[in-house]
Amino acid sequence: MAKDLTSRSKDYSKWYNELVVQADLADNSAVRGCMVIKPYGYAIWERIQADLDRRFKETGHVNAYFPLFIPKSYFSKEASHVEGFAKECAVVTHYRLKNDPNGKGIVVDEDAKLEEELIVRPTSETIIWDTYRGWIQSYRDLPLLINQWANVVRWEMRTRLFLRTTEFLWQEGHTAHATQEEAIAEAEQMLHVYGDFVESMMGIPVLRGKKSPNERFAGALETYCIEALMQDGKALQAGTSHFLGQNFAKAFDVKYQSKEGKMEYVWATSWGVSTRLMGALIMTHSDDNGLVLPPKLAPDQVVIVPIYRGEEDLEAITAVVDPLLKSLRAKGIRVKYDSRDTYKPGWKFNEYELKGVPVRLAIGMRDIEKGVIEVARRDTLTKETVPMTGLDSYVATLLDTIQENLFAKASANRENNTWRVDTWEEFEKALNKGGFVFAHWDGTPETEEKIKEISKATIRCIPLNNPLEEGVCILTGKPSSQRVVFARAY
Amino acid sequence: MAKDLTSRSKDYSKWYNELVVQADLADNSAVRGCMVIKPYGYAIWERIQADLDRRFKETGHVNAYFPLFIPKSYFSKEASHVEGFAKECAVVTHYRLKNDPNGKGIVVDEDAKLEEELIVRPTSETIIWDTYRGWIQSYRDLPLLINQWANVVRWEMRTRLFLRTTEFLWQEGHTAHATQEEAIAEAEQMLHVYGDFVESMMGIPVLRGKKSPNERFAGALETYCIEALMQDGKALQAGTSHFLGQNFAKAFDVKYQSKEGKMEYVWATSWGVSTRLMGALIMTHSDDNGLVLPPKLAPDQVVIVPIYRGEEDLEAITAVVDPLLKSLRAKGIRVKYDSRDTYKPGWKFNEYELKGVPVRLAIGMRDIEKGVIEVARRDTLTKETVPMTGLDSYVATLLDTIQENLFAKASANRENNTWRVDTWEEFEKALNKGGFVFAHWDGTPETEEKIKEISKATIRCIPLNNPLEEGVCILTGKPSSQRVVFARAY
Repeated sequence: MAKDLTSRSKDYSKWYNELVVQADLADNSAVRGCMVIKPYGYAIWERIQADLDRRFKETGHVNAYFPLFIPKSYFSKEASHVEGFAKECAVVTHYRLKNDPNGKGIVVDEDAKLEEELIVRPTSETIIWDTYRGWIQSYRDLPLLINQWANVVRWEMRTRLFLRTTEFLWQEGHTAHATQEEAIAEAEQMLHVYGDFVESMMGIPVLRGKKSPNERFAGALETYCIEALMQDGKALQAGTSHFLGQNFAKAFDVKYQSKEGKMEYVWATSWGVSTRLMGALIMTHSDDNGLVLPPKLAPDQVVIVPIYRGEEDLEAITAVVDPLLKSLRAKGIRVKYDSRDTYKPGWKFNEYELKGVPVRLAIGMRDIEKGVIEVARRDTLTKETVPMTGLDSYVATLLDTIQENLFAKASANRENNTWRVDTWEEFEKALNKGGFVFAHWDGTPETEEKIKEISKATIRCIPLNNPLEEGVCILTGKPSSQRVVFARAY
Repeated sequence: MAKDLTSRSKDYSKWYNELVVQADLADNSAVRGCMVIKPYGYAIWERIQADLDRRFKETGHVNAYFPLFIPKSYFSKEASHVEGFAKECAVVTHYRLKNDPNGKGIVVDEDAKLEEELIVRPTSETIIWDTYRGWIQSYRDLPLLINQWANVVRWEMRTRLFLRTTEFLWQEGHTAHATQEEAIAEAEQMLHVYGDFVESMMGIPVLRGKKSPNERFAGALETYCIEALMQDGKALQAGTSHFLGQNFAKAFDVKYQSKEGKMEYVWATSWGVSTRLMGALIMTHSDDNGLVLPPKLAPDQVVIVPIYRGEEDLEAITAVVDPLLKSLRAKGIRVKYDSRDTYKPGWKFNEYELKGVPVRLAIGMRDIEKGVIEVARRDTLTKETVPMTGLDSYVATLLDTIQENLFAKASANRENNTWRVDTWEEFEKALNKGGFVFAHWDGTPETEEKIKEISKATIRCIPLNNPLEEGVCILTGKPSSQRVVFARAY
């Protein structure tokens, strides 16, 4: 199977598209731009969800669910939000179908036209803040720390599985606070929740920073983001957290009575990550043989393949494997024993390599005699023969090692593709190599726009705690007080 | 708060509507027929989800995700399915909005009209079977045991929170099998998974049975269901599982090559439960004081309220409560200590009664001196004074007792409202008292329809392993071989 996979060096984009489908992660559907997330891909997403959900709850958040549909007029209430979101949307105009009077299937019933069109949510700030008005009266109702796991729809013209799809799955946190300081602290806290999750669970190093005003979320006063670097040198925004000021509170008239009895507008944040994280995961670690999964997110961490001729061999091997399965599972390791006789060992090896299972154990009759087993690592593609005695501890340690190695490898890749440049020439050269480019910028939206036009690079972020450093803008030569991070991006 | 709650005897329907909102479970939204599931309600739903998901996985199923939108033409492919589902639906006709040229907000961009309208899924058989065609080639690909957690939309004219809403959350299992026997066994297995879950976790006794042909799912050859009885004597269908035969396989051309090399159509099932279960939960156990939750699903199983005058008292109480919290949590008990000084104990007592927290502990300075604590049960509204020593075990046992008591109480209520009748007069009398009515029926759809017309009662199910019994139909006097279960229903 992996034989048919295009190599990264030949065509990175094609490699990605093929890999997503061949590794059974997702597929294009009959509906333009909408994907089917296949069971194997969904099992990874479930692990992402579960771990994030735990982190959200540990930081005091609760889940809720708000309507899929938003009345069209809601989008007009927050001026900059409508520009950003209310354009490429799925619009529900009717609520009934009927049999075609000409007998050709079913048609829309024109009598069932909605008075006001409904928009399938592209994000839920408007409907949620309209709801919060009823939930918030007093300082005692604050902070309100709510998250939602949901599907959203943005009518994208060019779609790619996981990276940009018309419908995608995500979580969106929407919090309400009594003070500006508290809201900013919340937005920053969630940035770090995301950053810690992505680094420790997904093995992807990220830059934590703020967006330039041009790149802010529609309606935000500050957008925080985590930025990852893919193997092809392009950046990928992996999560965002927004300080929304009082914009939505004012648009939807959400006030609270303070301890002192004054009516005040509420301060807001919102923050989200989506199935796009799956794209980041795939592109960070995988290779020309297929998917490479970090053990913490792999649905199967270990697979055991028996090498046998007949029933008798298989029984003997299974007798050795059964206690091993038990002891591995007792350590909380997700292990699968693939003793199917409908596929050959070679086919299975390819299959699990393609699917990125971190550790493969293979065992035959000779191994049993010698009391050993073959251990293959997916990340390094190395094999070694290991004694069966103490194998459970060996595997547990190995899984930790692989998790660390993937992060180290991705970090090294980022290091090797991070540049500091001082001139436009160096800037373009660095961009063409690919990677994060730290460069001086004069701080104006116009220059940022101009740089994007010429080079297709955007400011990915202004890192948190960015050191101040005098310099001159690479484009205009005007004075600059700090370097910002440019890259071409997904 | 509970003071404002209408009593069940005065107006059961009003009681329910008020309770859902007052107990912070859900709220009506600005979008007609769509609800907001509030954090407290959603926390219960999360527990339902988690436990069902575990049961699905234990029976070999995996999760996946399919598109929200379904092309209109798909509904016409399975003849009876289109009648049942493609009528009251949300229809997406456009994919873009634009600024109103007259400057009045935003309007639908008529240039962005879809060639084929998209339907927001009311159920996903069509899109899923269209996808399965690509996934199933050989007997080795079967069985395919997939579940999806998703939102669906059915444009209901009369909506009620949880019971019938335009958008609701559910899970839908869609499985594919090589043989008819296997598919039927799967449909029956899932019926029992539902039945066991609802009885053991939700404390709701259910009848397990088959639907009469009239009441079958659109496209099914057999519909299995679990039926619960509410306190007002009306039945509520709590879950269904369908044997779909080869209908969808034929409509979407899904064939597999058998071991013998023959091409065969695949056999199908589908099965689902929804946020409607929340309605069943509320209506089965709650009383005029508010919600009553079974401990296994309660977000907080125990709440501890300190009774204190000043800071010093509170510190002394907290010193006693802290180790108690630890020992309860060590036993896996979900416990909350509400030491807020912004609310009085009486307010808190009402609040937790309204919200159905199974056990309330109250402790003041005198209790500490005596080494006791006040334990109040939500299900019986009884209180007793219990020694602090060994309290953790006492509470753990009490939670089990409450769980059992709720099931026993609901079972007794069902017993007391189950009737066997032999004449039309008895039938109507029994229906007016409310409850399940076991009666003979001649087995024809016409008679079933007629009975429904006259009495508003439907056949809820034909119980599994229903004993054969000669008799005559209550309406037509024609011969009948078994009693079936009638009721008025939600």
